[in-house]
Amino acid sequence: MKRLILLAGLACVAALPLRAQEAVTDFILDNGMQVVVVEDHRAPVVMHMVWYRAGSADEPAGQSGIAHFLEHLMFKQTENLAPGEFSEVVAAQGGQDNAFTSYDYTAYYQRVAADRLELMMQMESDRMVNLRLTESDILTERDVIIEERNQRTENSAGALFREQRMAAQYINHRYGIPIIGWRHEMEQLDMDAALGFYEDYYAPNNAILIVAGDVYPDDVRALAEKYYGVIPANPDLKPRARPQEPPQTSARRMVFHDARVAQEYVTRSYLAPERDAGDQREAAALTLLAALLGDGPTAVLPKELQFGTRQALYASAFYSGTALDDTTFGLVIVPSQGVSLQEAEDAMDATVAQFMLDGVDADHLKRLKMQLRASQIYARDDADAVGNRYGQALTSGLTVQDVQDWPDILQSITEEEILAAAERVFDIDKSVTGWLRRPAEEASQ
Amino acid sequence: MKRLILLAGLACVAALPLRAQEAVTDFILDNGMQVVVVEDHRAPVVMHMVWYRAGSADEPAGQSGIAHFLEHLMFKQTENLAPGEFSEVVAAQGGQDNAFTSYDYTAYYQRVAADRLELMMQMESDRMVNLRLTESDILTERDVIIEERNQRTENSAGALFREQRMAAQYINHRYGIPIIGWRHEMEQLDMDAALGFYEDYYAPNNAILIVAGDVYPDDVRALAEKYYGVIPANPDLKPRARPQEPPQTSARRMVFHDARVAQEYVTRSYLAPERDAGDQREAAALTLLAALLGDGPTAVLPKELQFGTRQALYASAFYSGTALDDTTFGLVIVPSQGVSLQEAEDAMDATVAQFMLDGVDADHLKRLKMQLRASQIYARDDADAVGNRYGQALTSGLTVQDVQDWPDILQSITEEEILAAAERVFDIDKSVTGWLRRPAEEASQ
Repeated sequence: MKRLILLAGLACVAALPLRAQEAVTDFILDNGMQVVVVEDHRAPVVMHMVWYRAGSADEPAGQSGIAHFLEHLMFKQTENLAPGEFSEVVAAQGGQDNAFTSYDYTAYYQRVAADRLELMMQMESDRMVNLRLTESDILTERDVIIEERNQRTENSAGALFREQRMAAQYINHRYGIPIIGWRHEMEQLDMDAALGFYEDYYAPNNAILIVAGDVYPDDVRALAEKYYGVIPANPDLKPRARPQEPPQTSARRMVFHDARVAQEYVTRSYLAPERDAGDQREAAALTLLAALLGDGPTAVLPKELQFGTRQALYASAFYSGTALDDTTFGLVIVPSQGVSLQEAEDAMDATVAQFMLDGVDADHLKRLKMQLRASQIYARDDADAVGNRYGQALTSGLTVQDVQDWPDILQSITEEEILAAAERVFDIDKSVTGWLRRPAEEASQ
Repeated sequence: MKRLILLAGLACVAALPLRAQEAVTDFILDNGMQVVVVEDHRAPVVMHMVWYRAGSADEPAGQSGIAHFLEHLMFKQTENLAPGEFSEVVAAQGGQDNAFTSYDYTAYYQRVAADRLELMMQMESDRMVNLRLTESDILTERDVIIEERNQRTENSAGALFREQRMAAQYINHRYGIPIIGWRHEMEQLDMDAALGFYEDYYAPNNAILIVAGDVYPDDVRALAEKYYGVIPANPDLKPRARPQEPPQTSARRMVFHDARVAQEYVTRSYLAPERDAGDQREAAALTLLAALLGDGPTAVLPKELQFGTRQALYASAFYSGTALDDTTFGLVIVPSQGVSLQEAEDAMDATVAQFMLDGVDADHLKRLKMQLRASQIYARDDADAVGNRYGQALTSGLTVQDVQDWPDILQSITEEEILAAAERVFDIDKSVTGWLRRPAEEASQ
């Protein structure tokens, strides 16, 4: 009886009479600025975002952290706004604002009542070109980001472990360097570095405006042209070609010891292809592979290791294909009490090897696709999330069409494609195996 | 009887009535070009060298190989010389010329009859500023360097292994990137990249002129002023501050499989301090440590592992302290037939651990210092080698005084300093252990 209800529920989702795509309109201003409008008229609010195609992986060598540092500095004064005034105005209008930096992008957003959109555009377009930094801003805010590193990274064994693993994973590409920056380089970040990054990358032809909420495309276009359209393109903007990985030909292993480790664990990461414009099938297969291996109690790793042999407290797989350059496919296992890290790693490897022999369980894949379809349909109802999804994709080298094709591509991936993608990605020569441990009792040499 | 002869020989060396230092004179031209003159009047020949403080570790990210590529291109035409004419003129004068690129420098030299020095200066100063490249030069010479990579690197399992080890050793610094370049980046090197490196770094205030042989300082100065002194300094030359390593906190291991491997072996490298200006004692201690552990049949590793347990066909230690930034201290063991790589690695570690417990054998250190003193005294007779030694040191952040202090510093290092330096450098968290293997019979996951 319960089973019948479940099936009915799924059938209902699959049959929902929804629009085929999100209500998305996109266009490009004359100066090269891309605009994406996501309509959602259920509530009189709007999310206004500007995404720059510039993240930590675009930084000059030796200036790690400058993308994130500049993100902080963007809240200082401009020709027209006093320091901190930007956020004060947003708050006074009952809105919220913030920003975030990743490897491939830096984004600024404000969530406000829909009739405040013009004010947001006025202020955001102002700081795209009129930032006025002082040496005092640099000193103050540098302390802030260093303290942020202390909080997020230095105080966390897991974060430090991740940093060293990424550094081992990437030989040549800046995905191996932390977004927040290496501490010793953060301490040297200065006005020149900040303004250099600002001048190189903050320009309309390197930005994407995303407006999601109770707006109409024609109104957004008129406002965008008025505020952003008048800013000249940066004629010196360089093609976005970052150092790429050479062949990775040696399996790497690393051990990180930290007295603060409460729970030891093992990770394995493999260099993996990302979603490319017009070429997303491999990434889609890896997305499904990660879900088959790790997502939920019926997935291969947890089913076998948490609920079968009980060798693991937790076991999973990770893959995120939205990146400009080669990303990683990850496995993790947290051993149960009395299971060594080596035993846990061996069990994880054996489970994956058995999966490769057994192949994909057709019912498992079918359930997974159904869940994906359902979650994608529900996701359309969240205009902010839609905006974020487009922002991440467009700053990662994808097109609006790619974003819209993605759900159907996922549905169309076959069992054979998943296994073939697994064969390719599980190349030990491109992997890093990491152990997070408490310090050994005896001194290690 | 034999022993007495040996002692007499050593005493003789120690008592040689030699000058305290090489016959070296150094000065700086008004435009910032440093000049070192090494006098040696025994034969009417001269070595003329120009060293640039620019090597592969100074390259922009994504342009690996550009330092070496430019070295090749410097033999193309200038305003005054046809392509290849430089070397033809040198050969026609009975001389030899060549060039070499390393992490920290690029150097050009000609060995000619002493009376041809002026001609060499004329031509070398010409190509410091007047290089005229064509697109055809770029295409032709790029094929040449790619073929050089094929020959030196792609065709050698050991070279590929070294490349991946260095990439694992350095997280952030460009010593982790091969001097010859990553193949995929070499294929993209172009005119802009070559001219960019040339304009950034090829200038008198970034160069060192070294003239060794049958010359007098005043004559060299007059010629140097005439040819090099007239070239304006590059006012935009940046301080030489390259990305440095963050804390290395995770022991790394890697395995490189190659069917061409004739002899499997194990290496271990530790990040290690280099000689710093006015601060060379740690590097001197490490220099002696490497010799104590690995230099000759009576050194710790060969004595124990090659001639004692016979577990190794070869065992040694390596350290070269002349570098601008952190270098490496290395151990290597080639196992005997029937000894596994793990057994060999364990034996190497056990031997080093025993050395740390036993401490430095005083007689061994004394013999070593005597040998060093002798070889340094003999080395003074080779003006070319003296020139090379100064060139390497001065492009690695050291001063003439540092070079001259080095032999006495080595002599003054105590057993305690060596052990203390060993304690610091043998930090497994800063190490990479590499195995070079034939492919496993069974497929590895």
